[in-house]
Amino acid sequence: MTALEMSKLETSIDAVQGFLTAGVDCGLRNKPQPDLSIIASEVNCNAAGVFTTNQVKSAHVQYDMAILKNDPTKIRAVVVNSKIANVCTGELGKQNTATMAALVAEKLGCESSQVLVMSTGVIGPQLPMDKISRGIDEAAQSLAPNGWDDAALGIMTTDTRPKKASIRCKGYTIAGIAKGSGMIAPNMATMLSVVVTDAVLTPEQAKTALKSTADQTYNCIAVDGDTSTNDTVLLLANGASGLHAGEEFQAALNAVCRQLAQEIVRDGEGATKFIALEIVGAPDNTAARKIADTIATSPLVKTAFYGGDANWGRIVAAAGRAGVSLDPEQMQLQIAPGEHLNGSDSLLLFTNGMPTEYDESQATQIMGQPSISVKLNCGAGDGHALVWTCDLSHDYVSINGHYRT
Amino acid sequence: MTALEMSKLETSIDAVQGFLTAGVDCGLRNKPQPDLSIIASEVNCNAAGVFTTNQVKSAHVQYDMAILKNDPTKIRAVVVNSKIANVCTGELGKQNTATMAALVAEKLGCESSQVLVMSTGVIGPQLPMDKISRGIDEAAQSLAPNGWDDAALGIMTTDTRPKKASIRCKGYTIAGIAKGSGMIAPNMATMLSVVVTDAVLTPEQAKTALKSTADQTYNCIAVDGDTSTNDTVLLLANGASGLHAGEEFQAALNAVCRQLAQEIVRDGEGATKFIALEIVGAPDNTAARKIADTIATSPLVKTAFYGGDANWGRIVAAAGRAGVSLDPEQMQLQIAPGEHLNGSDSLLLFTNGMPTEYDESQATQIMGQPSISVKLNCGAGDGHALVWTCDLSHDYVSINGHYRT
Repeated sequence: MTALEMSKLETSIDAVQGFLTAGVDCGLRNKPQPDLSIIASEVNCNAAGVFTTNQVKSAHVQYDMAILKNDPTKIRAVVVNSKIANVCTGELGKQNTATMAALVAEKLGCESSQVLVMSTGVIGPQLPMDKISRGIDEAAQSLAPNGWDDAALGIMTTDTRPKKASIRCKGYTIAGIAKGSGMIAPNMATMLSVVVTDAVLTPEQAKTALKSTADQTYNCIAVDGDTSTNDTVLLLANGASGLHAGEEFQAALNAVCRQLAQEIVRDGEGATKFIALEIVGAPDNTAARKIADTIATSPLVKTAFYGGDANWGRIVAAAGRAGVSLDPEQMQLQIAPGEHLNGSDSLLLFTNGMPTEYDESQATQIMGQPSISVKLNCGAGDGHALVWTCDLSHDYVSINGHYRT
Repeated sequence: MTALEMSKLETSIDAVQGFLTAGVDCGLRNKPQPDLSIIASEVNCNAAGVFTTNQVKSAHVQYDMAILKNDPTKIRAVVVNSKIANVCTGELGKQNTATMAALVAEKLGCESSQVLVMSTGVIGPQLPMDKISRGIDEAAQSLAPNGWDDAALGIMTTDTRPKKASIRCKGYTIAGIAKGSGMIAPNMATMLSVVVTDAVLTPEQAKTALKSTADQTYNCIAVDGDTSTNDTVLLLANGASGLHAGEEFQAALNAVCRQLAQEIVRDGEGATKFIALEIVGAPDNTAARKIADTIATSPLVKTAFYGGDANWGRIVAAAGRAGVSLDPEQMQLQIAPGEHLNGSDSLLLFTNGMPTEYDESQATQIMGQPSISVKLNCGAGDGHALVWTCDLSHDYVSINGHYRT
């Protein structure tokens, strides 16, 4: 891709043609902050979604899956509430989802089957529909091309900052917002993301592109190994630019979603360090992924990163219990400062079944960086996997020990 | 079993006929505390072992597995060092294991193939053989029938207290010591245990009894989901009582090992609560175990217990991501104070896909207990599993963020 085809990735969002957004405070939280967002399109969108694999699914997730299965070509809006997840809420929860969609549809002058619904928060409670209804009223009135900042704030839970990204590409734009924090696991645990584009995409193109991006971005992140009931990533393409998405679209979409996914990890609950973990030389890609996930979700590995301790033995031991046949004698483990292993500043810690004569002060210096790359070569084949994760800190425990209160 | 056949389980150990033990401080730790233990028998023992399933195994584990495979009928002693795990230590590590066995054998006047070796601690460093050698000298001189207290101290790592249990049964005794703390997962993650009896057992009886006990006790515990490179449980039967183990032996062995296993959980790194988690109604026992392990190792569930928050939604959501086909509408979740669910004081939190109208203050009262039972009925079959676990606290993070330093 040349510079002519794609602009620099931005962590802000200007207007995207034909999209109007808003985020308002309807009183779902205990503090003044937007808690309900609407992302709307002036015209019908072709849409695609990727959803949680948890067997326990939010009423919203079930609703969206049904809508997109039935007709993904006429989507006009997404409404998102935070604080309450609408999970394990029975028939009333399903009705409330339908009501949210209907209220938005009424404001936009479309059918409720053209509105998708997302939520995040606590499992169990029913949505306070009076507040939600007032919020939808207010948000619909506030819809504006430049409402992205509020929309990004409205979907946050324990996130400490909003997550936005955009890119311009051959005359069209791709922009997205996301929320993460905690419960972030491989396979997209509690995270919501809405990505829009004014490029022209067929429903099939949207579906294929989103699936591919999710595998390379949102499904590469792990905070604590838990997988939520509500995870949803949506892509809406309204075609307002009149420009057809070409070959460049996938790379541009990946860039936006990679930024959002990595930002979710950096802002993981209590996270103090970003870790890019690469597994190579595994028996196959599935095995590589198992090893990566086992290391990335090991509390012993994660606390060692928090403590800045180059405790390579915990990484090797985590690989050893991943359920993959491995020979420690064939493994090699390297670390380096920053997000990418770069031959010049990487440090080999373990090879031939034993630690190297590495300089402990150099290892500690690397472990003290805000971003660290780790590369484990299993010496057992061509399997490869990449996972972005973070450390496990005292703050993670504080946040999650008292989340509901 | 009647009271005549089996005495009350004790958490101390008097002499066991024909066994001599010792624990000495040979300077492996940074503080004065026994760090090397020997458990010896005056006569040959029939022995059995259960070992870690981690692909990365301590040189000691590899050695013991080979010895017991070759001849489990002439074991005379077990030597255990703490602080250093002898993992990823190459040829020198293997030699050091053999040297430890040979040094003990020399003291006892037997062959080195009659001595088993265990270790626990940091991965990577070589054993300081000068200290180990002096320690073995000193321990061999200190061997005594009443050396169990020192022996139990000598195998500790981050344990805050020694773990001992014994029972008298029809005239013979079963006694055991264990170490745990952190890295305790289903499938016996970092834990060592030596159990001895003066009953007469064949090697086959010892093997069968130990495997059965491990499945019902040591393999039912989870602290943080990590699985170590060194886990070993050994059973030594020297027959000194002249009494043959009868049908009662399995129950008595289970009682000793259950006590040791539960004590490992209670003393898990940073643990403030003991949680007995029972899964019933799963599609089958394997599925039940997957669900139990997923819940027991979920950081979100564990931090909620630490915070005393009856956040049942996290338990249900963890079950939902266990990779087992489940219908939330069929699930039922109960909690109760204490280690055993007892109809009278249990509280139903979730049924028919929704929370019950339970009293939140009653739920909080139960969650504030030092021991809590949780029972999840999946409503999907006859599968059953039981796991003992603990919460995830600030102290867990403190301990593991700075373990090597």
